[in-house]
Amino acid sequence: MATIKDVAKLAGVGISTASRVINKSGYVSESTKIKVQDAINKLGYVPNETARAFVTQNSKIVALFLPSIHHAFFSELAYYIEDALDKNGYKMLLCNSTGNIQKELSYISMLKQNKVSGIIGISYNEIESEIHNSMPIVLVDRHIGTIPYVSSDNYGGGKIAFQVLKDTGCQHLAYIGSYSNSVLTEVEKRQKGFEDAAKEDGMDYIIYTEQDPIEDQTAFLKRFLSQYKNVNGVFAENDLMALELFELAKEQNIKVPEELSIIGYDGIKVYEVLKSKLSSIRQPVEVMGRSLVELLIKRVNGSYVTPVIHPVEFVKGETTR
Amino acid sequence: MATIKDVAKLAGVGISTASRVINKSGYVSESTKIKVQDAINKLGYVPNETARAFVTQNSKIVALFLPSIHHAFFSELAYYIEDALDKNGYKMLLCNSTGNIQKELSYISMLKQNKVSGIIGISYNEIESEIHNSMPIVLVDRHIGTIPYVSSDNYGGGKIAFQVLKDTGCQHLAYIGSYSNSVLTEVEKRQKGFEDAAKEDGMDYIIYTEQDPIEDQTAFLKRFLSQYKNVNGVFAENDLMALELFELAKEQNIKVPEELSIIGYDGIKVYEVLKSKLSSIRQPVEVMGRSLVELLIKRVNGSYVTPVIHPVEFVKGETTR
Repeated sequence: MATIKDVAKLAGVGISTASRVINKSGYVSESTKIKVQDAINKLGYVPNETARAFVTQNSKIVALFLPSIHHAFFSELAYYIEDALDKNGYKMLLCNSTGNIQKELSYISMLKQNKVSGIIGISYNEIESEIHNSMPIVLVDRHIGTIPYVSSDNYGGGKIAFQVLKDTGCQHLAYIGSYSNSVLTEVEKRQKGFEDAAKEDGMDYIIYTEQDPIEDQTAFLKRFLSQYKNVNGVFAENDLMALELFELAKEQNIKVPEELSIIGYDGIKVYEVLKSKLSSIRQPVEVMGRSLVELLIKRVNGSYVTPVIHPVEFVKGETTR
Repeated sequence: MATIKDVAKLAGVGISTASRVINKSGYVSESTKIKVQDAINKLGYVPNETARAFVTQNSKIVALFLPSIHHAFFSELAYYIEDALDKNGYKMLLCNSTGNIQKELSYISMLKQNKVSGIIGISYNEIESEIHNSMPIVLVDRHIGTIPYVSSDNYGGGKIAFQVLKDTGCQHLAYIGSYSNSVLTEVEKRQKGFEDAAKEDGMDYIIYTEQDPIEDQTAFLKRFLSQYKNVNGVFAENDLMALELFELAKEQNIKVPEELSIIGYDGIKVYEVLKSKLSSIRQPVEVMGRSLVELLIKRVNGSYVTPVIHPVEFVKGETTR
């Protein structure tokens, strides 16, 4: 009986290429596909079902790098990613990888060995040198070479946050958040959008940031409140930070929004039940999850795709006037 | 060169059994192990590295059934489970399976085919007939045959919730939560513990429950507040419900804890940042995650283990006197 080795030999390709054609996984050029199919027909090759099951299973697994499941935005995104993968017949390996590059590298190595068919990466590790443009990888909020990414319009979101604060009467504005020395993330565009809008408007502003990850967010926010008592409008880099600032302000008897307006970024559902009616720039998290999977499957099938930037909108809560 | 087929034939076992011995995955009796090892030695069998890599990879994957990643307790538990699995060399497939039994069945079928080596199940689906006691499965908060489970001391937690409410001066108590007609979950023991403590004490109480899943929790809680105006102490089945009740009470100008004391169940970290200082029965989520993985690995290696029930403690917040 003909083996996959015979097929590969007759088609003049490697065994792994023949395997990709047989299992319809990974990228193979059209001409190679035809050559392999011809060899299969000539030899009457029937794949070993057990072996094929293994390979098929392997090719239908996607790994998701998640920085922290404690952050509700990421949990929610992970939920929609898993749901969309499932609808496309893929299973999802979850890799919580905050500050653990070795963990991510082990999945990248699995990708190289064809044991997972793709990676969706929400990663703050320095993995640039380990991945390259031809791999089926899609990133969230991060740019590496021509690897496609999905993000929300962070820059535009920063601009409208400024506009809302200004239009509702705040005169002393601040952006609070974190910055990274190593990795350029989309999140920093929130700050850039805010700054550019302020500059265009000719308004002064405070930038209050600390290097990511902020070790003690409570202390960081308390210092802000004591140092910048005249600030009456804040745009915080995410909802979790905005919510904590809101709570700390209440503790210190600072009236929100009368004395201090606060806008966050994310706009996620989990906080709705808490009735913490935070004003926020809402990212379309479900749409983002589904578009990540769509891009990844295209990459797995060998297509090239460009980044997708999703529009955001301001959702008024109780923390702005 | 000898193949695994030859090994299996000489040992008088099936190929899958020989494979389990070679790859040290799944349960094999000691006597069979010795027979297979003898055959390997006699034949000088060297496993095919590629095939072994596939099988090994497959055997080092555990599936986690998660009912809802929106519920912070489950997200946090998933985080610790993945961390503990990783430390033991396992990867984790995440299956969000609320109300989707087909999805869970596909993983159970993978387990039967040895494509995943075990399942940690937080499941509310009726999977009783599909799993049996010999499978490497560990459940959370649920009893099926002799399949081991991990839970916190839900019954004891219900008892101390009653005790705290009573000792802080509440005279009219209620338990609010959900019940299931199909699946007996550990969560219902919270109610049982509360009821038994009240009966022992001779105090009347209200049980206000709706069938799981509660479709509109906000409406459910609003009805409670309007129907039971004299209740001044509530034990809610989880923190999310307790928090929403707290927020709705504030909206209706009911003073918490003076006019209404509230105790939740879970005690998870994600809400700490929100400074919603809820009084709660705290489950040791990290310890529970690690003990789930410990039990599962023992099951994967063929040991039999008994359930583990972790103690809980009352953590005072601002919602009790």
